[in-house]
Amino acid sequence: MADFGLIKSLARKTDTKIVMLVMDGLGGIPHPETLRTELEAAETHNLDRLARASQCGLSLPVAHGITPGSGPGHLALFGYDPIHYLIGRGILEALGLDMDVRAGDVAARGNFCTLGPDGLITDRRAGRISSDVTPGLTERLNRVSLRQAQAIARPGREHRFALLLRPAEGGPPLSHALTDSDPQREGLAPLPVTATEPWGEHTAEILNAFLDRATAAIANQHPANGLVLRGFSTRPDLPQMADVYGLTPIAIAPYPMYRGLAKLVGMNVVEAGDSIDDQIETARRHWDEHDFFFIHYKSTDSGGEDGDYDAKVEAINRLDRSLPALLDLDPDVLIVAGDHSTPTALAEHSWHPVPILIKSRHVARGFTEAFSERECLRGMLGTISATDIMPLALANAGKLDKFGA
Amino acid sequence: MADFGLIKSLARKTDTKIVMLVMDGLGGIPHPETLRTELEAAETHNLDRLARASQCGLSLPVAHGITPGSGPGHLALFGYDPIHYLIGRGILEALGLDMDVRAGDVAARGNFCTLGPDGLITDRRAGRISSDVTPGLTERLNRVSLRQAQAIARPGREHRFALLLRPAEGGPPLSHALTDSDPQREGLAPLPVTATEPWGEHTAEILNAFLDRATAAIANQHPANGLVLRGFSTRPDLPQMADVYGLTPIAIAPYPMYRGLAKLVGMNVVEAGDSIDDQIETARRHWDEHDFFFIHYKSTDSGGEDGDYDAKVEAINRLDRSLPALLDLDPDVLIVAGDHSTPTALAEHSWHPVPILIKSRHVARGFTEAFSERECLRGMLGTISATDIMPLALANAGKLDKFGA
Repeated sequence: MADFGLIKSLARKTDTKIVMLVMDGLGGIPHPETLRTELEAAETHNLDRLARASQCGLSLPVAHGITPGSGPGHLALFGYDPIHYLIGRGILEALGLDMDVRAGDVAARGNFCTLGPDGLITDRRAGRISSDVTPGLTERLNRVSLRQAQAIARPGREHRFALLLRPAEGGPPLSHALTDSDPQREGLAPLPVTATEPWGEHTAEILNAFLDRATAAIANQHPANGLVLRGFSTRPDLPQMADVYGLTPIAIAPYPMYRGLAKLVGMNVVEAGDSIDDQIETARRHWDEHDFFFIHYKSTDSGGEDGDYDAKVEAINRLDRSLPALLDLDPDVLIVAGDHSTPTALAEHSWHPVPILIKSRHVARGFTEAFSERECLRGMLGTISATDIMPLALANAGKLDKFGA
Repeated sequence: MADFGLIKSLARKTDTKIVMLVMDGLGGIPHPETLRTELEAAETHNLDRLARASQCGLSLPVAHGITPGSGPGHLALFGYDPIHYLIGRGILEALGLDMDVRAGDVAARGNFCTLGPDGLITDRRAGRISSDVTPGLTERLNRVSLRQAQAIARPGREHRFALLLRPAEGGPPLSHALTDSDPQREGLAPLPVTATEPWGEHTAEILNAFLDRATAAIANQHPANGLVLRGFSTRPDLPQMADVYGLTPIAIAPYPMYRGLAKLVGMNVVEAGDSIDDQIETARRHWDEHDFFFIHYKSTDSGGEDGDYDAKVEAINRLDRSLPALLDLDPDVLIVAGDHSTPTALAEHSWHPVPILIKSRHVARGFTEAFSERECLRGMLGTISATDIMPLALANAGKLDKFGA
């Protein structure tokens, strides 16, 4: 829901604990030959047993037919209407690189590219330069000095980087109402940044000055002798989970982007460890201090994005083997969800509804016999909006008062 | 729906008859040992046969995760958006005690309490005094005289009472924008009532004068020598069912609160009789005069609230045995619904979706084989908002015109 008024008015603090395990890109579609989805092919004895004792269903991250990015997918799981609360691509990229994004900063995604002698882009990805080379290039960008702002670049994988433009102390505020400099095609020159609102002109001037000087600073490099920027955006001002739910949430996520998303909604983001077993151990260590635990499992999505069916199946198997350690924590409410589907047949995020299970002492059971897309269809939850998951979690944890007399 | 515009524009008067049987607190969750809900354990041959010939589904009174009180639960069944149309606690209490709540009255819930010699509350419930004692206390309150208003108290169960503050004829109007005098904790003194809006100050003064005089009037009683008030509210101005649906509705409900709710939406509230058989007979007697019959069955909720599994099962059995008499009336549309779930495992209202069946000559059937939470999950209706029930009832009764050409 876009407005947390009702939930906020009913939320009450209790000692009960909620664990939300997000298996990134969880949902899939049948393999063209075996007709089994990755979840159906996986050995999920633990998840299946859990599903039989849970309320199961399918969750829609945004709406039927809409394929969400990681930002909307996670915001919906945290109960935030993903259409109302938008997070720009630049911000998401900066968060993904663990940058310290502050209120007032304008963020952008950057690519290093190859420019021909005529200034036209000959390769948008500069031959996918090695990730070892990129830090030297961003180092040159960081030495570019600007009036009334500071540019902070951080290297990503291969040709990618993120840029933060930070207003000078006491200087005028910056705007994200800007067009991309990335023409998104080869054979064209990088575009000047232009303002889409009058109040963006000052920032466009600063960025064009930056782009000129930055291009000059790497002009003698090869093959990455140019750069383009896109997705200008600022840090959104999101309601905090402590305020709207009365929770004391913690994020146990190894990957920077999810850590950044968790920070935006007010979670305590801690050192997670590398494996899911480490993450569960981290949850145990912080068990007494928190009442909401967001645990992010990335491998399911990675297998899906790579179009590697076996890798995704094995990622599910691995999670299933670690599940008993999570159950040992004995949370009052355990949610196993996904932020979106990533079918290996598509090798990218998709719009398909995502299996979800909610386990508590107060379960109304349907007909689900295993944890899979089809079996969850037979669950008592039916197909719900992902933004309904948090109210259900709070209700099952006894953290919501009755509405009305 | 908050706005009845569409339904109102399509509603047409016909001779067909709709019966809405509300089994209060109908839904449940599995018994921890038998894994059967109360509905699954009950002997419901008649309801099961009816379900097989009906459109079945599950209804959500407010939203996923939200546990409704009786007010929102019933308003939703009557088609009123329960978030938009709020009924205050004081009003509901006064209606529950069958008080004649008039437009302009301000209602409150009251508790008699025990005050120590220092004026602090030592027992918020005055030792749960017997219901025999309370009428003598409210009688003393009713003798308190006020300028510009009249205070009318009526005893409830044990230490509870309801208070109506009625403006004097020609006197200034009263406000409900007031803080509670109930501090909700022992060891504190009752609070003075304060206005939360400037236009409430006049009413706050009257109420504080009332509280002073009422406390003096019972000061020598024991253990109930004090009182506190909360939930100040006025009678809501709800659209009337005759206006929005073109219906001539009747309420056949023995319990005062449901009679009061029915009055608020414009139903003709008649003497119902004590048992469900009496109520069905009452419906028969009024059959020709009305086209919408709300029949309220309380026993299912009572069993649930008491945490008495067998009592709730027996309440369902009893209803099932009486069902043939209701079917004998041969309504064009018969709805069997619940205002919310009251699982005996929780011993209170809950957020779980509620089984619903709609029988008419125009039934699209699903896979439901019995009337239970799980079997209704397999029905053609799916999981619907409770506010969708009235439009479906009207449609099945041929009482809605086509929308658009």
